[in-house]
Amino acid sequence: MTSRDKLIRIADIRAAAKRLEGIAHRTPVLTSTTVNQITKSQVFFKCENFQRTGSFKFRGAYNSLSQLSESQKQKGVLTFSSGNHAQGIALAGKLLNIPTTVVMPANAPAVKQTATRGYGAQVILYNPKEITREELALSLAQEKDLKIIPPFDHPHIIAGQGTTALELIQEIGELDLLLVCCGGGGLISGCSMITKALLPNCRIIGVEPAQADDATRSFYSKTLQIVHNPDTIADGARTPSLGKITFPLVLEYVDDIVTVSEQAIIRTMLFIWQRLKIVAEPTGVLAAAALLEGVVKNPGAKIGVIISGGNVDLANLEKLFSQI
Amino acid sequence: MTSRDKLIRIADIRAAAKRLEGIAHRTPVLTSTTVNQITKSQVFFKCENFQRTGSFKFRGAYNSLSQLSESQKQKGVLTFSSGNHAQGIALAGKLLNIPTTVVMPANAPAVKQTATRGYGAQVILYNPKEITREELALSLAQEKDLKIIPPFDHPHIIAGQGTTALELIQEIGELDLLLVCCGGGGLISGCSMITKALLPNCRIIGVEPAQADDATRSFYSKTLQIVHNPDTIADGARTPSLGKITFPLVLEYVDDIVTVSEQAIIRTMLFIWQRLKIVAEPTGVLAAAALLEGVVKNPGAKIGVIISGGNVDLANLEKLFSQI
Repeated sequence: MTSRDKLIRIADIRAAAKRLEGIAHRTPVLTSTTVNQITKSQVFFKCENFQRTGSFKFRGAYNSLSQLSESQKQKGVLTFSSGNHAQGIALAGKLLNIPTTVVMPANAPAVKQTATRGYGAQVILYNPKEITREELALSLAQEKDLKIIPPFDHPHIIAGQGTTALELIQEIGELDLLLVCCGGGGLISGCSMITKALLPNCRIIGVEPAQADDATRSFYSKTLQIVHNPDTIADGARTPSLGKITFPLVLEYVDDIVTVSEQAIIRTMLFIWQRLKIVAEPTGVLAAAALLEGVVKNPGAKIGVIISGGNVDLANLEKLFSQI
Repeated sequence: MTSRDKLIRIADIRAAAKRLEGIAHRTPVLTSTTVNQITKSQVFFKCENFQRTGSFKFRGAYNSLSQLSESQKQKGVLTFSSGNHAQGIALAGKLLNIPTTVVMPANAPAVKQTATRGYGAQVILYNPKEITREELALSLAQEKDLKIIPPFDHPHIIAGQGTTALELIQEIGELDLLLVCCGGGGLISGCSMITKALLPNCRIIGVEPAQADDATRSFYSKTLQIVHNPDTIADGARTPSLGKITFPLVLEYVDDIVTVSEQAIIRTMLFIWQRLKIVAEPTGVLAAAALLEGVVKNPGAKIGVIISGGNVDLANLEKLFSQI
């Protein structure tokens, strides 16, 4: 047993599932005759866009916050994110009666500020030209004794995200292949751990934007690679690198990581909206893009595909789809 | 027992459900904490946008085509529609190995022509300035001995559409109120019949666009009213009037019909996409609009809302949402 195994175990993912029971949605698994025909396989979409707050991030957030000490729960938590993690933390805090503070750049889309405030978090804006979010978050956390809940590199976050694959396997059973999007690696770490435990023969492939291919390079070089402000539409995969905890887990449990182009992401988004009739965000369709664009082929296989989230600014749609 | 009762019976809806088993999707029923909070009620969305071909129309189409005589099945069928009924007929024909012909105006959106051809129908285009679709359809049907399958005013169509409410009630049980969109009345006729049979105390309210309020006027005047080329975004409700069969059924089984504005339809569509993360078309959100815009209020009630379809041209989205 390595030191890594002590940080997170299969039992932690099962315990997270128990904590989330009746709190997180057991999201639906959708199928599509058209997708099966195109890919010559049986495809099962695990739809975390239907999760509370619109993404899988709620799972890890709630799993983390519910394990804080009573005194820490009273003091509250802080996170820095302008995206889905912030909303997950905000709602988890509201449900657990824990004060939440979210640090966001002043230029974050109004819709995300509103959503995060709507779930009950205090949003603190900063000017990214004057201070980094880490500096501000650290000083705020120390000043008010708030615990920082990181977006992915934490055992409780990883265990929570792993419940996504656990539910999929509980519902579908055997799978030959699981495709998961990859940003900081929280989702794919947890999902690959539990999948390899339950279905040792199931291959796991991570998918990230070609414009933000740090995880692919890290995976192949076995050395943590970093990408700076990648120009990808998949905002959830703009994280600079895998984490100290997620990277070794990815190396151990993931079979391959592939990349998809920006055009492939947008085409897949349009396809998913039109054919599956669900709203998925760019990061949310990364895994589907690898399959539908033929980057990954596995005819005859039973394939799980995680749709990770559905938070997209509908006001900017035309701009988005006009890029195809 | 009136003569009407002989045209369609509860047993016909149950028989349709049997025919559709394993062929049509048992579409999911979605709920939303936000919607429940806003409406102070328990709302269950029956999501026919997830039905095959993207709308409930497949139910009636398949139920009709599967009951044709063997000789008629060999000769084939014809319909005139540029919308969801055409796609339903095309796929039902493909599955049952029945040749299908669809008459469409030459200016119908390319995406609808493509979809209908994609499901295997022969599409015949006409110039609406030179000939009416009825004239062309009749002459084609006679020439080739094709049976015309009307979009709503037929017992087999109505029975098929009624299976939507049957499934909802089988899944959810008691309901105090059911909201259903209303165009030609095929969906609401079948759904109200079966609902009143299973849940006699459940109120049924039809919803149509204020710009195409013929059913509302027909309902209140008890005389069939007609609307000409109504200017509504809800293209499924642009039918000129209820039918000879659907009108008396609506009078007998529906408790009220209300209207919603174009703005209400668009706002609701945006809300449904953003919060439920599903793609619903304008006609598909009519019933939801009545509830979310407060036209119908029923705090404390268990409310079924049918989302009838999800076929929307994503290329025109910006135009759509910019109208809010």
